[in-house]
Amino acid sequence: MKSPRHTIQVGSVLLNVAKHITLDKAEAAYFTSILKVKDLKKKDFLLKEGEPCLTFNYVNSGALRGFYRDSYDKESTIMFAVADWWITDMPCFVNQSPAMIYIEAIADSQILQLTKVDMDALLIKIPKFERYFRILMQNAYVREQLRVLQNLSQPAEVRYQNFLKKYPNIVQQVTLKNIAFYLGVTPEFLSTIRKVKKGHVS
Amino acid sequence: MKSPRHTIQVGSVLLNVAKHITLDKAEAAYFTSILKVKDLKKKDFLLKEGEPCLTFNYVNSGALRGFYRDSYDKESTIMFAVADWWITDMPCFVNQSPAMIYIEAIADSQILQLTKVDMDALLIKIPKFERYFRILMQNAYVREQLRVLQNLSQPAEVRYQNFLKKYPNIVQQVTLKNIAFYLGVTPEFLSTIRKVKKGHVS
Repeated sequence: MKSPRHTIQVGSVLLNVAKHITLDKAEAAYFTSILKVKDLKKKDFLLKEGEPCLTFNYVNSGALRGFYRDSYDKESTIMFAVADWWITDMPCFVNQSPAMIYIEAIADSQILQLTKVDMDALLIKIPKFERYFRILMQNAYVREQLRVLQNLSQPAEVRYQNFLKKYPNIVQQVTLKNIAFYLGVTPEFLSTIRKVKKGHVS
Repeated sequence: MKSPRHTIQVGSVLLNVAKHITLDKAEAAYFTSILKVKDLKKKDFLLKEGEPCLTFNYVNSGALRGFYRDSYDKESTIMFAVADWWITDMPCFVNQSPAMIYIEAIADSQILQLTKVDMDALLIKIPKFERYFRILMQNAYVREQLRVLQNLSQPAEVRYQNFLKKYPNIVQQVTLKNIAFYLGVTPEFLSTIRKVKKGHVS
């Protein structure tokens, strides 16, 4: 029998699923039974480059960032995930190859993990999950396309304002450099934009 | 009754679908009945910025590029599609909002078009298409992620070699500038790489 704590832990992922597909009680119970809870402290790594990328990860609470670290130890942040988002190194998860990126908790976080093996079995056992994951993948692709297009089409000021709206809780938790890379501007330029916004520069 | 020409036209998309799901004859007939054939001459536009983005497009033959044009008429190529690929302005197709990009034929091309309305109806009528489109969306997202990561991790020479392998037919059809933008390097740098490869520079 599941503890009440477990029920609370999986509540939000069931609400997320319910946005796109309707599960009966047995289906919901099966789905939640294959998710594994992982608690991370701020600065813990969910994934490191070179490790097997075994799981697709639902953020139950907290926030994470995904970044590439080059051979000079320069980090490039390429994704963020806040509560109610999914995150993984998708190319490596799909191909079950070693991770190319690091995923780090930027706040104390609780993650629900779905292994590739369990996801494949879920899609066979309850095919309507194909719809759920089709919409997730579609949204992820749309988000990446929009990031590319907005970096080309919108002034950095607008991109930064949109970032603040989209990730209101992240701004305090990550460095200016990480946000700047994500927005496609230099940290110096982003710093100027922020000062202008705060009225420090006329 | 369908003409033999129509049978040939839809043959390759059915093979593409068959990589991921199995259709019976009635399902295959229904799917192909909702695809509309569009022939494009080289330099014709499949889509222009501001137009409604109504269709998801399977490339039966030929090649296309998707690009953003800024207010100074500077073009940034953000995607290519060759035979047996699907292409659209996905954010605008999903939201049925005006297109943000241009999609241009870079060779005489034949396209099979699926409208959003027909796709939504297809997913209700034959739910196993959720699996097909889940895999398409997943592959598209993986491709975008890999492009970002490879631009960070691989030397431009390696990226250019991989581009040649991935799109052997495109190189003759697009300008150096378009490939350079897609690979995340300057046209001048790409030009140097190409000369080195051809042995023009020692």
